[in-house]
Amino acid sequence: MERIHLLVVGVCLLSCCRAEEGLNFPTYDGKDRVLSLSEKNFKQMLKKYDVLCLYYHEPVSSDKVAQKQFQMKEIVLELVAQILEHKDIGFMTIDAKKEAKLAKKLGFDEEGSLYILKGDHTIEFDGEFAADVLVEFLLDLIEDPVEVINNKLEVQAFERVEDQIKLLGFFKSEDSEYYKAFQEAAEHFQPYIKFFATFDKGVAKKLSLKMNQVDFYEPFMEEPLPIPDKPHTERELVEFVKEHQRPTLRRLRPEDMFETWVRTWLGEDNLNGIHIVAFAEKSDPDGYEFLEILKQVARDNTDNPALSVLWIDPDDFPLLTAYWEKTFKIDLSKPQIGVVNVTDADSVWMEIPDDDDLPTAEELEDWIEDVLSGKINTEDDDDDEDDEDDDNDDDDDDNDDNDDSDDEGNSDSDEDDDDE
Amino acid sequence: MERIHLLVVGVCLLSCCRAEEGLNFPTYDGKDRVLSLSEKNFKQMLKKYDVLCLYYHEPVSSDKVAQKQFQMKEIVLELVAQILEHKDIGFMTIDAKKEAKLAKKLGFDEEGSLYILKGDHTIEFDGEFAADVLVEFLLDLIEDPVEVINNKLEVQAFERVEDQIKLLGFFKSEDSEYYKAFQEAAEHFQPYIKFFATFDKGVAKKLSLKMNQVDFYEPFMEEPLPIPDKPHTERELVEFVKEHQRPTLRRLRPEDMFETWVRTWLGEDNLNGIHIVAFAEKSDPDGYEFLEILKQVARDNTDNPALSVLWIDPDDFPLLTAYWEKTFKIDLSKPQIGVVNVTDADSVWMEIPDDDDLPTAEELEDWIEDVLSGKINTEDDDDDEDDEDDDNDDDDDDNDDNDDSDDEGNSDSDEDDDDE
Repeated sequence: MERIHLLVVGVCLLSCCRAEEGLNFPTYDGKDRVLSLSEKNFKQMLKKYDVLCLYYHEPVSSDKVAQKQFQMKEIVLELVAQILEHKDIGFMTIDAKKEAKLAKKLGFDEEGSLYILKGDHTIEFDGEFAADVLVEFLLDLIEDPVEVINNKLEVQAFERVEDQIKLLGFFKSEDSEYYKAFQEAAEHFQPYIKFFATFDKGVAKKLSLKMNQVDFYEPFMEEPLPIPDKPHTERELVEFVKEHQRPTLRRLRPEDMFETWVRTWLGEDNLNGIHIVAFAEKSDPDGYEFLEILKQVARDNTDNPALSVLWIDPDDFPLLTAYWEKTFKIDLSKPQIGVVNVTDADSVWMEIPDDDDLPTAEELEDWIEDVLSGKINTEDDDDDEDDEDDDNDDDDDDNDDNDDSDDEGNSDSDEDDDDE
Repeated sequence: MERIHLLVVGVCLLSCCRAEEGLNFPTYDGKDRVLSLSEKNFKQMLKKYDVLCLYYHEPVSSDKVAQKQFQMKEIVLELVAQILEHKDIGFMTIDAKKEAKLAKKLGFDEEGSLYILKGDHTIEFDGEFAADVLVEFLLDLIEDPVEVINNKLEVQAFERVEDQIKLLGFFKSEDSEYYKAFQEAAEHFQPYIKFFATFDKGVAKKLSLKMNQVDFYEPFMEEPLPIPDKPHTERELVEFVKEHQRPTLRRLRPEDMFETWVRTWLGEDNLNGIHIVAFAEKSDPDGYEFLEILKQVARDNTDNPALSVLWIDPDDFPLLTAYWEKTFKIDLSKPQIGVVNVTDADSVWMEIPDDDDLPTAEELEDWIEDVLSGKINTEDDDDDEDDEDDDNDDDDDDNDDNDDSDDEGNSDSDEDDDDE
């Protein structure tokens, strides 16, 4: 990597590099820490480091834009490598063509992805490719896979984690074979899903746990689901988590935003090609209120397998807020809930006339029912929209119709496409 | 601004610019939106925009490093200007030498600062110079200065804001002259200090507010301080806030980190040239527990004017974590509290042998007393440290031994906490 770094890396940090002692953002020192992978140095690296972070990329073409994009990724990686220099993590790039054989052996299949090798596990990073997000992801990854809860105050901390999946097990001691199976299972999902354990009878009693019991907590639900047939093997735990990984309400997170969005988008999670997205700023009273209502609806409908709502807190994505407002034509200074069509990002949003008068849980539930039944759909307003030809970028408009009718085949909405 | 932008700006975003519809991070489009200020265009800009964002800089020298640093700032500003294009905010740079007269008129005195003009107010941004932090700061600034609380759910949201100063007033209606004074006062502190109001008797009753009463909440304290002698003028409110702006326990925030650190550093807030810093990761059980203990100590000592503890959650500053670990020679995967000398960043940290056995509130209070009395100070270990002049940057490894033996001094303290 060349000279360009010295210029660019300060920007990576987006810091102003002020001289106050104790608050100096790191700046790139110019050392090359990210290596290009070959069969030979790969083995060395495997020996040398506990964790390897591999950027698997398509061959860098002679196209200038592509080259620059690649350099930018490299720069982010260099910076992360520097910041984490003493953490025993190796960083490499791997060319999909030159090292096709090795990539195949490693099971890499998605070009442009970052794969992390840790022990027997390969973890794909599918979040925002930014230095801060990556650093935090890697720091979480090298911590213990299981957090131990020792006392009542730590129970409070555990209970505060409500916006993501978590598991909690009660075991005799660190030497228990069931605790070891639990640890092994945790490694499959680290750092995306948090595993907690306790060896303390008082804590277990407070959380109604029997010996070797493992509880699965869906995000935002008050009551956990005890995993049946205790004690469990590693495999049983892993399979249970995989089966229950799709919550009724989930929060979009920078560290796995693309994975969440794409899984949603590509249909694994969506309902007839649509998806329900809610924007609510938790730190704002209206946003908080709306989120509480949304949680209530999710709790009441947790058994409905068709329902999965994606909650986005605009505070988590300041750089995307204006983009979303433009794409979806909504005002994100107040709460919003809508249906987004997966093929063309066409969307319909619930009318919330006044943020002093948010919908009740019942009204929200009725609206969601109308969405699930197809009564509310993204085509209803298409008469107006067609003229403007505005579905965002320039996705070819020609096949919009096909896509739409395909997706909504089993709702009755395609007959009355031009109603209103 | 030149060609360099196209290359660099993608990096500003640190995004991978993936093509998923609905999650496209904005990339710089190459348009110049940030203007250099002159007397003439300044007046035009004042007319055109509600808010002006001015980067006040020293003359750009012929020194290459200085030029690059300036370009980096400009790039961050260009990106922010693009993202907020439809928000009625103008962006300009102002050369301290060329436009000295105007700068003086505007009251700008700190080169390298970002000043925001909004109505009659000039707000200095003294946080992390990063696109995401700046965008969020500006979005907060153009919202209403007062958040209105309408119902019990919104009271919950209000009560959740505990880590920063907040004010809450009860007024007859939006037309009340006292509410207007409250709004005017809020504008002095927006977006750093949050002002809330209610017109709802039920809400007021729940929060024990009488008509025209304004309560001042210190961070982490359970009971607010009613501002005496209601009703209040704008000036009385502003003066009260300024007098009470120094809390017993405060959280370091990206949006005003430098201001907080420097004010601390320069003596306005410090005790005989030292400062107490606590690191605790709120999302981690141990960190959460430590923070709760710290809050308890702060509550018990809120009347001690000498005490002000700065709490840093490493999660808020992923890029600085490794730097702090190196500078202060501590392990931030567990809670830490220490005294930092303002002049040389020399520091002493409380011994916490085992994170399963954190200090009690009493032990912490004793330790803090020893700090305040000077019994614990950063000079005690200077026999070791003196050899190697100056600590942070390139500290040599010679004193590793000392650190280690200190850390592992007494770690046999596992008592069973049976809290049944």
